[in-house]
Amino acid sequence: MLEEKGRRPAERVRHRVPMMIREATIEDWPEIWSFLRPIVVAGETLTYPLDLGHDDARDWWFLASPNRTVVAVDETGTVLGTAKMNRNHMGNGSHIASATYLVDPVRSGRGVGRALCEYSIAWARAAGYRAMQFNAVVETNVHAVKLYRSLGFDVIGTLPEGFHHPTEGYVGLHIMHLAL
Amino acid sequence: MLEEKGRRPAERVRHRVPMMIREATIEDWPEIWSFLRPIVVAGETLTYPLDLGHDDARDWWFLASPNRTVVAVDETGTVLGTAKMNRNHMGNGSHIASATYLVDPVRSGRGVGRALCEYSIAWARAAGYRAMQFNAVVETNVHAVKLYRSLGFDVIGTLPEGFHHPTEGYVGLHIMHLAL
Repeated sequence: MLEEKGRRPAERVRHRVPMMIREATIEDWPEIWSFLRPIVVAGETLTYPLDLGHDDARDWWFLASPNRTVVAVDETGTVLGTAKMNRNHMGNGSHIASATYLVDPVRSGRGVGRALCEYSIAWARAAGYRAMQFNAVVETNVHAVKLYRSLGFDVIGTLPEGFHHPTEGYVGLHIMHLAL
Repeated sequence: MLEEKGRRPAERVRHRVPMMIREATIEDWPEIWSFLRPIVVAGETLTYPLDLGHDDARDWWFLASPNRTVVAVDETGTVLGTAKMNRNHMGNGSHIASATYLVDPVRSGRGVGRALCEYSIAWARAAGYRAMQFNAVVETNVHAVKLYRSLGFDVIGTLPEGFHHPTEGYVGLHIMHLAL
């Protein structure tokens, strides 16, 4: 699920910044928290508790191996965005992966979300997953839905009124799928 | 998600046994484990780790308030089946509930699963949820799918090849929904 609040005009999308995606470390947390917190509090795109605390958020975001948490950084080392990627079902559903993406709103419109999403797809494929599934993509998060579609994801179902958007009211939650 | 392995012929469905549904207690655990374990090991209906251990399973099955775990018992106090019911999404998706049902295979075909499902729907409605969602109903679990449909659930999407059935191979995982 991608958060791209405050996204800049479409023409900016092509002006991609040089970036590198690497494993997140605990030293990255203050930067991640600086944009994760307002995104969570805004409550427009994630099914996270709006009052999620600092420590819980950190434990939530940093996943243990074989799941992964990464950051996208620019040439100065500034964190532009982050992703966590994980097994989505257990047992005989263990071949399905998922991921969540967050882009710092002030860095949006530069292809950070797309780069993170492509990275997670490559990870899932390399890790032997057979598909990726997003469980809860807020349908009003149109930039994210469009991005996922552009990378091959389909909406396989929509939970009607599954999300209570702070300004749009009850909106659907898409379940999205990509065969790997 | 309902497990009704070894279900008896359809004509037995009408011969419902007297039963009561009550809060599960830790004293019920040995009986629950006696049928939960083989259902988990069979790997035909649940996305649970097939090697789920006794203690993990107990911690998994007994939910903390306001979520609930109940048992259906007959007039002798024998546990016929069990259900856990819970919030399915957090934050601005907190109005969506879910539930999981297990019926002792030797007690199947007596309306136990239906009674537990009806109970959980009533619970969710009383608790103020706006809908129930099942995240992963194995499509070959046709008795469960039929039961849920009979209670008003719709399949809102199917994750293609989302479940690796031990004998059927890769089969779909239904996402099912009921507005309350």
